[in-house]
Amino acid sequence: MKLGTLKSNSKDGELVVISRDLKWIARASHITPNLLAALESWNKISPELYALSDALNKDLVKDKLPYDETKFHSALPRTWLFADGSAFIHHIRLVRKARKAEVPETLLTVPLMYQAESGSFHDPISDLPQIDFSHGTDFEAEVGVIVDHVEMGISAEEAINKIRLVVLINDISLRGLIPQELAQGFGFFQSKPVKALTPVALTPDELGPAWKEGRVHLPLEVNWNGKLFGQANAGQMHFHFGQLIAHAARTRNLAAGSLIGSGTVSNENPNVGSSCIVEKRTIEQIETGKVETEYMKPGDTIEISMKNGAGESLFGRIFQKVKQV
Amino acid sequence: MKLGTLKSNSKDGELVVISRDLKWIARASHITPNLLAALESWNKISPELYALSDALNKDLVKDKLPYDETKFHSALPRTWLFADGSAFIHHIRLVRKARKAEVPETLLTVPLMYQAESGSFHDPISDLPQIDFSHGTDFEAEVGVIVDHVEMGISAEEAINKIRLVVLINDISLRGLIPQELAQGFGFFQSKPVKALTPVALTPDELGPAWKEGRVHLPLEVNWNGKLFGQANAGQMHFHFGQLIAHAARTRNLAAGSLIGSGTVSNENPNVGSSCIVEKRTIEQIETGKVETEYMKPGDTIEISMKNGAGESLFGRIFQKVKQV
Repeated sequence: MKLGTLKSNSKDGELVVISRDLKWIARASHITPNLLAALESWNKISPELYALSDALNKDLVKDKLPYDETKFHSALPRTWLFADGSAFIHHIRLVRKARKAEVPETLLTVPLMYQAESGSFHDPISDLPQIDFSHGTDFEAEVGVIVDHVEMGISAEEAINKIRLVVLINDISLRGLIPQELAQGFGFFQSKPVKALTPVALTPDELGPAWKEGRVHLPLEVNWNGKLFGQANAGQMHFHFGQLIAHAARTRNLAAGSLIGSGTVSNENPNVGSSCIVEKRTIEQIETGKVETEYMKPGDTIEISMKNGAGESLFGRIFQKVKQV
Repeated sequence: MKLGTLKSNSKDGELVVISRDLKWIARASHITPNLLAALESWNKISPELYALSDALNKDLVKDKLPYDETKFHSALPRTWLFADGSAFIHHIRLVRKARKAEVPETLLTVPLMYQAESGSFHDPISDLPQIDFSHGTDFEAEVGVIVDHVEMGISAEEAINKIRLVVLINDISLRGLIPQELAQGFGFFQSKPVKALTPVALTPDELGPAWKEGRVHLPLEVNWNGKLFGQANAGQMHFHFGQLIAHAARTRNLAAGSLIGSGTVSNENPNVGSSCIVEKRTIEQIETGKVETEYMKPGDTIEISMKNGAGESLFGRIFQKVKQV
């Protein structure tokens, strides 16, 4: 099942079901007003949503409407928690090298995680407002899962069963602000501004065999200014999503609708490119001693999407254009 | 005006107005269902709430009900952002000394801030669930302000005008988990679990002359197991709340209802005690070379409150009892 959120008068938007081929939508607000409400009563609400989804995919919904990406919010416009992990070890090793920082001793055993902005995501098709370009605006393409209510102390294995939806995320990072923030010792805050999610959130069953062991085994496609920049496989997470959820829930319950992020997707294979600029810069530094690639400039565009094995778009796309404000 | 939230079928509870003397309440859900909704339309909603508050204080509300602290949620049961600062420099110096860490170079010019759990606060009168006492359960008594929508890039002076409500907070900290988390470089996550707020949130005008230069100039009373543990003056913030809000909003808008915390209240005067256990332990270490005070144990209680100059309770109280789960 594919779900999304139309822009409306409400900050939570209006829930819609989206056809598998991303051509049609069916309003679902008669079932429940928005996706956050659906997640808070998932066991009760989801059978009706699945029924509507089946009907839409069989072309049995009379008042279906065409899918228009410009009318969508992020699949979940806002939520109570975004716990963003960093599950691709190759990325951690590279960026720490770039800022001459040590990797943590527990690199392979304890996930890195920070709590990120989730009170109002950008729309997937939107301007990306930047106030100061010395901040070093970078994209970070990643995968996220949206969970049901999760009890404190859950195991990693049980946690996989709490995953209700999968999305893609652009976790914008302001590279120029990171060194000072991390030197203060409290982690990221200003350096991690507002994110965008794809218009489409899908239930894991939509991924077929690509959903395996708590990971999405498909390439994540990143286009910067219309040119392919990265297509790293999202399946190469060192920690799977069950482990990330269990880490987040070790000392707290997670509210239904909480978003858990994979961190920037990154593979050791250099031929697949990168999912963020800083990684490319680091590789340039290592290989040639000279950084050539600059961070994003006003007018730059970033597109993030993912195709299934048949080449069909799964999540629609994030497409943002940097704008000086 | 004093506002609070009764427990109800909704996770956001039911909005009530509370009399200045904390003896009576008047239901306000006919005006707007809950406090988060009130904050999202403050200019429109607050005049009606002020009128109800005036009527209640003049004993003109017929269907008023007695104030019963056990029926209250945290004044704001959940919200989109809790950006917790650390504005009492004395506390930072002490705790960094305790964990043999350097203070940041920007200690006096850039606030420390992390994003904390805000998806579901504990009730003010509640058990404090702990799963593992090797975690070193500590309280942290602090002051918080709840803001209207704040635009990215706001100045510290303008930001003071965005403060709608003031509360007290118990920012529980798991001291045993902090060193490893900070060593990983991403800041706090597991070491900072669910917080509680006072039952009462008040508009700054209720503080009279004690609200000055973006600070609350009153002692914060902390009782641990029924014994006075601290009464540090909350007015001795190095950064005022306008500066903390501006720091939080440097690269993002803040949603209406966002909570900004002062960090543990702490004074240099040793006679006023402390607002968290770790500070007392650090002082013991420095003065005697030996730490005597242990962290909280099952059955321990922590009470946090504040009185005005006339000795009247302003916010009601947080009263939590540690329970092993």
